[in-house]
Amino acid sequence: MKTLNINSKRLNQTLSELGTIGSTSQGMQRLAFTQYDIEARDMTLSLMSGAGLNTRIDTAGNIIARKEGTSPDLAAIALGSHIDTVPNGGKYDGALGVIGAIEVAQILEDTQTKLRHPLEIVVFTNEEGTRFKRWLFGSRAMAGLLEPDDETAADEEGIPMSSRLGDIGGNMLQISKAPRGRSEIAAYFELHIEQGPELHQSGIPIGVVTGITGRWVYGVEIIGVANHAGTTPMHGRRDALVSASQLVLAVQSLASELEICRVGTVGNIQSYTNAANVIPGRISLGVEFRDVDMRCLAEADQEFHKIAKQIEQTEGVNITITRFENTESVQINQSMQNLVEQATDLTGLNYKHLPSGAGHDAQAMANITDAAMVFVPSVNGISHAPDEYSTPEDCANGAQVLLNLLMLADERV
Amino acid sequence: MKTLNINSKRLNQTLSELGTIGSTSQGMQRLAFTQYDIEARDMTLSLMSGAGLNTRIDTAGNIIARKEGTSPDLAAIALGSHIDTVPNGGKYDGALGVIGAIEVAQILEDTQTKLRHPLEIVVFTNEEGTRFKRWLFGSRAMAGLLEPDDETAADEEGIPMSSRLGDIGGNMLQISKAPRGRSEIAAYFELHIEQGPELHQSGIPIGVVTGITGRWVYGVEIIGVANHAGTTPMHGRRDALVSASQLVLAVQSLASELEICRVGTVGNIQSYTNAANVIPGRISLGVEFRDVDMRCLAEADQEFHKIAKQIEQTEGVNITITRFENTESVQINQSMQNLVEQATDLTGLNYKHLPSGAGHDAQAMANITDAAMVFVPSVNGISHAPDEYSTPEDCANGAQVLLNLLMLADERV
Repeated sequence: MKTLNINSKRLNQTLSELGTIGSTSQGMQRLAFTQYDIEARDMTLSLMSGAGLNTRIDTAGNIIARKEGTSPDLAAIALGSHIDTVPNGGKYDGALGVIGAIEVAQILEDTQTKLRHPLEIVVFTNEEGTRFKRWLFGSRAMAGLLEPDDETAADEEGIPMSSRLGDIGGNMLQISKAPRGRSEIAAYFELHIEQGPELHQSGIPIGVVTGITGRWVYGVEIIGVANHAGTTPMHGRRDALVSASQLVLAVQSLASELEICRVGTVGNIQSYTNAANVIPGRISLGVEFRDVDMRCLAEADQEFHKIAKQIEQTEGVNITITRFENTESVQINQSMQNLVEQATDLTGLNYKHLPSGAGHDAQAMANITDAAMVFVPSVNGISHAPDEYSTPEDCANGAQVLLNLLMLADERV
Repeated sequence: MKTLNINSKRLNQTLSELGTIGSTSQGMQRLAFTQYDIEARDMTLSLMSGAGLNTRIDTAGNIIARKEGTSPDLAAIALGSHIDTVPNGGKYDGALGVIGAIEVAQILEDTQTKLRHPLEIVVFTNEEGTRFKRWLFGSRAMAGLLEPDDETAADEEGIPMSSRLGDIGGNMLQISKAPRGRSEIAAYFELHIEQGPELHQSGIPIGVVTGITGRWVYGVEIIGVANHAGTTPMHGRRDALVSASQLVLAVQSLASELEICRVGTVGNIQSYTNAANVIPGRISLGVEFRDVDMRCLAEADQEFHKIAKQIEQTEGVNITITRFENTESVQINQSMQNLVEQATDLTGLNYKHLPSGAGHDAQAMANITDAAMVFVPSVNGISHAPDEYSTPEDCANGAQVLLNLLMLADERV
């Protein structure tokens, strides 16, 4: 196997340049379908062309860049990730996987290296799903995992996602053309920041991902009685925020003290009266639980409903729980993990095995092909926040492992 | 003393007509300075003129309607309240006091009854203070109780209250002309719905108010660390919403289980990341405590700060507490309470004494003159909510007591 080295300086420069698009004093605001997202997509399209790839956009809005290999009958090896961010997000989540893949393609181009397999780089649409609450949209579309709700999703202002999809070159009416299969994609590799503290704390530069967490997401609506904050005695109140607070602490306790599942979070809260002198009458919450073991999620789900019932009784409120996302966990198969180990061995770096607490496009892609993921450390484990940071050295290490992985897979897959 | 009877049908019709201005499917939205408020002010101006009063607007935007009495040297007897509402509010809070006063004046006009004292009816500006957080603005201006913050207040969009004040005919640059004294106003009477459950539950139609609650309002800012909801282990989190929830329950417990003060409420909550997959990094809360005994408020304040310090330590967050309102409680003097009792006796109705849990314009006016308040029942104690309701009979009873009170005071003050 030919030994190639990625260009660390170029990689980090490009990554940093992408990080200027949608950057604000409150962190990255490159939400899917926004002007920033479109600008960043244009940047990657031009980089891909520069690396000798032909680009197209599928009906799910995914950018697919492709370079043919020397064996016309082989399926492609795909590298990919996403470039949309959460609100107040960071510059590395997703971006590293996309820019790392482009650097790999650029090195192949620079050195006139031919692969046996076609090479594809995919920038998946709307991985984060912040606005339309339909995360992994592009990768689920490619893996044939879309649900009816994906096609009808609209944001709080009633703007349908289908119209925003048109803005980036997709087409919801033709969405059934997005799915692909193993006959087209022989393997999928994704480089990503860990987004957790494990690699950073252990000082190990590369993570071999063993599986990707499952995730259940709920919308919770708590209806109490809005009333005057000065005249309503404490004992007669049905304060929706008091009930919501009990639920927030219950979610926290389910995952921490009780250890029923790995993590539980209330990330959203909205109060609908929201005046200092009015007892809150209606609160909505966004709740999620994650675990690699789906049985733990089922147990957390049961306990969560039980606690909500208790709060309903003691506080006299009505609580409606709607589960609007159910992402199955994924195991990365052993041969793929071995390939990542070997790709890392070629660099002389240490690695450790770890599950991914975050969801990733690889999770969807694992349904149609062999998928593998390479993690690099997140400083202090911070992600989905302005302080998200991975060192230039760690980013380069990750891209080098991705390059090695591609070269190994090209020989063996 | 001449015996006069208010016109119950007209009173309730006018009240109901005022209730159409700013009415929505989510309750009243007649916030101070809005188009609805301006429209309602115009309606009262025209009713006042119809009742033979001369109207003017002072520099604080208060509508002052006046009819001279037969003794030119006497100070006026003022009746008043407000017509602005909280968001999603009701049709009776404030409105009954204004329309009741106008009905009283109309009866005097209809019957050509002359008073010794000048009669004034005041519609106070921005009693609720929802938008600019400067409640009792008009009555505090008239009582000379404005603070520097009142003159510089701006809303979340940066629009200064002074500009909105100009829209309703006030003038912040001349605000120092608003204060008046006992030499101008001999007494102030305010009819109001109770906004609490006491009269309704006891079946007694008239409340003689003994005092008005003090109120301390706080803005609380909780800074944690925003991070990825899937990858951040439970033990490493600094979740601002978890801390906020502990604080909400502590406020509840201070006033209920611990009975340190009469009521405590968190009416506002705002999360600034607010994405389902991000641990909340920053939450702000609006908190208030009320009690007629200011020592109880001081104790609640101390306890509240202590609990916040504990949460800071156990949760690793920063909590900043800013007290931005400090309304002193007011005692209604005994002779004024006696006058309300006698005015009620003239109607043959039962009454009971009770303190007011809500703040009122009378609270400010009590600083410059003798003030009294008459309460009527709120069905189920509901107020500051769309379901706020007082029966036509109770509204008429209240207006009749207000009329009797005026006639008695005209003889005795």
